[in-house]
Amino acid sequence: MKLFTVGPVQMDPAVLEAGARPLPYFRTAEFSEQMLQMETQFLRLLNAPPESRAVFMTASGTGAMEAAVTSILNPERDKALVIDGGSFGHRFAELCELYHIPYVALELPFAADLTEELLLPYQEAGFTALLMQQSETSLGKRYDMEAAARFCRHEGLYLIVDAVSSFLCDPLDMTACGADVILTASQKALALSPGLSLLALSPRIIAERLTDQPPRCFYLSLSRALENMKRGQTPFTPALSVLQQLAYRLQQLDQLGLQSELKQRESLALYFRQQIRQLPGLLIPDYTLSNSLTPLLTGSMNAYDLFVDLKDHTGLVVTPNGGPFAHKLLRVGHMGDLKKTDYDDLIQALSQRLA
Amino acid sequence: MKLFTVGPVQMDPAVLEAGARPLPYFRTAEFSEQMLQMETQFLRLLNAPPESRAVFMTASGTGAMEAAVTSILNPERDKALVIDGGSFGHRFAELCELYHIPYVALELPFAADLTEELLLPYQEAGFTALLMQQSETSLGKRYDMEAAARFCRHEGLYLIVDAVSSFLCDPLDMTACGADVILTASQKALALSPGLSLLALSPRIIAERLTDQPPRCFYLSLSRALENMKRGQTPFTPALSVLQQLAYRLQQLDQLGLQSELKQRESLALYFRQQIRQLPGLLIPDYTLSNSLTPLLTGSMNAYDLFVDLKDHTGLVVTPNGGPFAHKLLRVGHMGDLKKTDYDDLIQALSQRLA
Repeated sequence: MKLFTVGPVQMDPAVLEAGARPLPYFRTAEFSEQMLQMETQFLRLLNAPPESRAVFMTASGTGAMEAAVTSILNPERDKALVIDGGSFGHRFAELCELYHIPYVALELPFAADLTEELLLPYQEAGFTALLMQQSETSLGKRYDMEAAARFCRHEGLYLIVDAVSSFLCDPLDMTACGADVILTASQKALALSPGLSLLALSPRIIAERLTDQPPRCFYLSLSRALENMKRGQTPFTPALSVLQQLAYRLQQLDQLGLQSELKQRESLALYFRQQIRQLPGLLIPDYTLSNSLTPLLTGSMNAYDLFVDLKDHTGLVVTPNGGPFAHKLLRVGHMGDLKKTDYDDLIQALSQRLA
Repeated sequence: MKLFTVGPVQMDPAVLEAGARPLPYFRTAEFSEQMLQMETQFLRLLNAPPESRAVFMTASGTGAMEAAVTSILNPERDKALVIDGGSFGHRFAELCELYHIPYVALELPFAADLTEELLLPYQEAGFTALLMQQSETSLGKRYDMEAAARFCRHEGLYLIVDAVSSFLCDPLDMTACGADVILTASQKALALSPGLSLLALSPRIIAERLTDQPPRCFYLSLSRALENMKRGQTPFTPALSVLQQLAYRLQQLDQLGLQSELKQRESLALYFRQQIRQLPGLLIPDYTLSNSLTPLLTGSMNAYDLFVDLKDHTGLVVTPNGGPFAHKLLRVGHMGDLKKTDYDDLIQALSQRLA
């Protein structure tokens, strides 16, 4: 099997091996030291402002999204603007609904990009936070972070960014965009096992929202996670094997450099798209694309059937979609341990099926 | 390092290896089939009644405790009796507090066992649910499940059992005790990496509480997990490497048999305790013990210093305690890949320090 999926992704054998090392006991000074080092490395990859902190939670990306909403936003004080352009944007809206956070969903049609113009009607309307994906994973659509950042700065909003699939794929600078929360998960371009979420927190959000707010969820409390992280610990037993993989991977990224990682994702994405555009029968939507994945409209072919056919007959696993696009759209990931020759294999398998 | 800790535990190299196999993509029929098989195997180990269901959540045991409280109990309909005899019993009380579930905590002093007599004053007092540990992990104290079960049956209460550290250590029969929820976690006697929780749900609790109750936590909703498990899926990307370890381990338990596993834990516990009783300076409390671990009162020695000393100078890692027992009590686990000779090493190291 070769995974072109968007989580889990094809894992480097060295990372798998790092996850199979005997586990340490974690309530020790040694473990704390390693956690604090990983925090520093993670924040550096995001160019987080000084005094930012990070926490690692044993949960999927959705757990991290909920942690952000429930730990930071407040029904009495907040009004959120949610960019709702796909399943994950919609999930932020559902979370606001659940926690009674007043919100407005800016619904983006399938083909539309997020633009400065679309944000204009929401100026001076009492919003306190903007919740968005950097890349909407369900469609591979990349949003204009600069436009969102300018809007937030101008309006004085908190900016909460789900970078689950964009981290290490699309450039993201926490200082430049002024984000207050950036969250991601282990099984995307970090290319680790699923089960761990990582959140970076700005000094502003820590001071204004994470010091004395009573928690509304015990397990997903960012305040509790932060309090423990001050000494390099987690409140509950963490996903240690994924943390061992993370330690290896962050070291690797330190050595190879963030730019090289970003270039590699971009180069795989461009290589694949170039070849797809020469194949009849498959269409790449017109919206701005993330380097994390390529969405493919399958036209007259049933997307789900094509996914099963590829998996069962070639061992090449692309990503099916849920919801309204289940039979129309496939996603091909550019994360993990994949090479250009893997994409050659996939293109060949696809072209046989299109013939 | 040799882990005598109570999570993570010393892992079998074959389990570590199972977690290092390339991950599958999980939105497939093959994965669903494997999940449903694991569900069956897990329910069989608990002797769950027919029509019970299980769900697997990517979270620590505390996440599973919160999932049970928030998904099942209701501030309008419930009044909970909580056995509060240590950190984890107290956590159930904290969770009831957070979700505004009316509750009474039956506080057990350090030396006291849970007895039928202690439950008597709570008869016919409007309780709807009993929340308890089978074994209170912070002390290694085992509660009388039969007494609790009789009380619940007589009073018509839901019985919610945290078996995080007792599962596979102390006999537990879901049909016999009539439990509605039994929860455990991957890093105890299952001896897998941390990050996965398992919950078994009775047909009664499914019918009465998990069909139309609106969720109060998105990520920890048991209804949502259950709805997805019907097709062998999880709502969010699960901790796949731990699930791969679980598949291996459940197969192993099928072959070796539950009784053999229980015997092994018991025999290690008895072996260790027999030798400890011959050592001056360390005391095992008088309360009923779980086979999962042995609590050691360290008398005139500082427990935490002894933990650090053992770890740093012998590589033998026992479990320190938090809270009021931080300097008085150590815990020695009997879970995971440990042999009698490992306990000989530990006894020798301890006796040198006591000399």
